[in-house]
Amino acid sequence: MGMVLYELAGREDDQLFSPHCWKVRMALAHKGLTAESRPWRFTEKDAIAFSGQGHVPVLVDGTETVSDSWRIAQYLEVRYPDTPSLFGGDAAVQLAAFVNAWADKTLLPLIARIILRDIHDCLAPVDQAYFRTSREKRFGESLEAVVADRMAHLAALRSALSPLRYVLRERAYLSGPEPAYADYCVFGMFMWARCSSPAELLEADDPVFHWRDRLLDAFGGLARYAPHVPAEGARQ
Amino acid sequence: MGMVLYELAGREDDQLFSPHCWKVRMALAHKGLTAESRPWRFTEKDAIAFSGQGHVPVLVDGTETVSDSWRIAQYLEVRYPDTPSLFGGDAAVQLAAFVNAWADKTLLPLIARIILRDIHDCLAPVDQAYFRTSREKRFGESLEAVVADRMAHLAALRSALSPLRYVLRERAYLSGPEPAYADYCVFGMFMWARCSSPAELLEADDPVFHWRDRLLDAFGGLARYAPHVPAEGARQ
Repeated sequence: MGMVLYELAGREDDQLFSPHCWKVRMALAHKGLTAESRPWRFTEKDAIAFSGQGHVPVLVDGTETVSDSWRIAQYLEVRYPDTPSLFGGDAAVQLAAFVNAWADKTLLPLIARIILRDIHDCLAPVDQAYFRTSREKRFGESLEAVVADRMAHLAALRSALSPLRYVLRERAYLSGPEPAYADYCVFGMFMWARCSSPAELLEADDPVFHWRDRLLDAFGGLARYAPHVPAEGARQ
Repeated sequence: MGMVLYELAGREDDQLFSPHCWKVRMALAHKGLTAESRPWRFTEKDAIAFSGQGHVPVLVDGTETVSDSWRIAQYLEVRYPDTPSLFGGDAAVQLAAFVNAWADKTLLPLIARIILRDIHDCLAPVDQAYFRTSREKRFGESLEAVVADRMAHLAALRSALSPLRYVLRERAYLSGPEPAYADYCVFGMFMWARCSSPAELLEADDPVFHWRDRLLDAFGGLARYAPHVPAEGARQ
């Protein structure tokens, strides 16, 4: 029996934009594994109640159910030891957890302040009210107010990316000459934006732009050819 | 012949506060290696001209001369393979480089805006004019102006530490149950502040505070018992 991956979808079933689900999509591709995609909306809590919690991604692999992208990555690494490693050893797992936290705790809040209103617009109608209410409660202001100073947050994001930019001077990926899970943790943030917003987060002369381009092309263009929102600028 | 480490010193020879030199001090202790400390001041470029560049740390190990803390760590790892590893494998080296870049590119500029004026005051008189001129040129304003909004930068630093804070919920060190070079890269930033400024960067209920405490105690209190500036608050 094949794997099933519950993923957050927008208006269309193939409009997949969750940063954490993209981490898992890339991890599965890295390992040469496939999972049937099961589109899920924010308001369909019942559909994943079997997982014991209310968030996606949820991976079902035979009798195993695993939620949370980080735990899914650990699960895949242990369960499929004969496929390419996502980490390259225990010491690297620990440091990849830091990179994942950097993506989630530093980059995600900055990108949210650029794209949050756009996410609302790409959601299925049934999800829009839930999204607006829950996010406005979390941020303490309207979606429109969250993204009001978009240019300042874009500048803050580009500044926050300086450590990634620095290490990319000398190599193709954060993880070294080849990509690994730490790259996918950060790349997921960019797929979140690409698939939900026309905002271009990066300038074309940024090493991070070229790193993102390489990951868009990875695994036969898995990410590049996924449905996305056309960019305001010249992004392909 | 023993190793020699050229380290930045303040007014006194044992007032060692360079963040990058602290990375190397901790790396040497991690490997159980010792080096004779050779105090050096900013204006003594001639004393390290033999290294082909003008910054410390510079490590001299027999006929080998290595500068730059990252390259010194790589050198020690390869040259002394029978001592405890600073990284735990090639994949972890790559990710440790990212953590090092995060310390240098994200944390260091924020801490500079808290302690830069204090550093000036702890320098040897011969270095003070050089420091003021070079730093004021770099920042485009006076030392006093750089640190004028200290409280805002303290808040920004504590916010920027959120990825580290997050991973420390579940383990003692950034690198896992035991510290390694990635920890020392970040810890060096805190030693920079401790040894040059009375500013307390962390609140006592912050997991990062306790992580720093553990590293202060590591290797027999190497860092804790190094000469430092008494803190404004209750820091020991």
